[in-house]
Amino acid sequence: MNSFESSCDISTGPRPAASRGSRVLRMSDFRWQGVPATQYKQAADHHCGVTRISLAGETGESTAFHTRYFEIAPDGFSSFEQHAHEHVVVILRGRGTVRLGDTVHEVGFGDTVYVAPHEAHQFRNVGTEPFGFLCIVDAVRDRPVPVTER
Amino acid sequence: MNSFESSCDISTGPRPAASRGSRVLRMSDFRWQGVPATQYKQAADHHCGVTRISLAGETGESTAFHTRYFEIAPDGFSSFEQHAHEHVVVILRGRGTVRLGDTVHEVGFGDTVYVAPHEAHQFRNVGTEPFGFLCIVDAVRDRPVPVTER
Repeated sequence: MNSFESSCDISTGPRPAASRGSRVLRMSDFRWQGVPATQYKQAADHHCGVTRISLAGETGESTAFHTRYFEIAPDGFSSFEQHAHEHVVVILRGRGTVRLGDTVHEVGFGDTVYVAPHEAHQFRNVGTEPFGFLCIVDAVRDRPVPVTER
Repeated sequence: MNSFESSCDISTGPRPAASRGSRVLRMSDFRWQGVPATQYKQAADHHCGVTRISLAGETGESTAFHTRYFEIAPDGFSSFEQHAHEHVVVILRGRGTVRLGDTVHEVGFGDTVYVAPHEAHQFRNVGTEPFGFLCIVDAVRDRPVPVTER
């Protein structure tokens, strides 16, 4: 694969019709009623087993941020990448690691990760159940750039 | 009390020193290591039993959004209010209700609420344990306005 495809900023296909009205999205087993989940159909060089669900900000809302839920399957991982925009991540299920530069932190439910601008980062499932987290980003943001190991 | 004091946009007192570096905030029993929690010392006319924790966006980050955790004690409730800015809320613990205009929805873990501009809204704990949720808002936002019953 020549072009870098981030596991975070992927297209999620056709969107539901825009709706700006207030609403409650019901969650059952980490899937939200009426909200599509985009699963990677196969592993790539850069990521593996990542599902992305857009909860708010990309379907007609006018927030300055997008709220997404990512889930990484056991043995899966996100792209090792960096970008100018920041991440705020809140773990909702499972156990995983986040690599921030050269440091790896193990994280679980409720732990909150702030990824600073241009910090190389990668999420990895180290448990036996799905590793799921909210990831909130600015609506206007730059594209991720892959990081190669030194 | 003459002036309306929202339960959402309260001051949280002195801030920790700004730090823009990446970091992991460890959570234990819905409190985050090194992050202050501001508890209302007494009930007001408009709200009762609300604790506010600022997780990211207000301590040196440059995100276009603020990520806060609110917790409402049993029998507690937030202000019934409206404002132009939107809320994205994800329930993390307990059972509660959210009133959106004239409709009341019961919500629990993982349920996600989008509050549209100028929608009158109120959160209420209807369970026996704390009712806690993330509430994400634009960093630049208007002040809440109290809503009186018709």
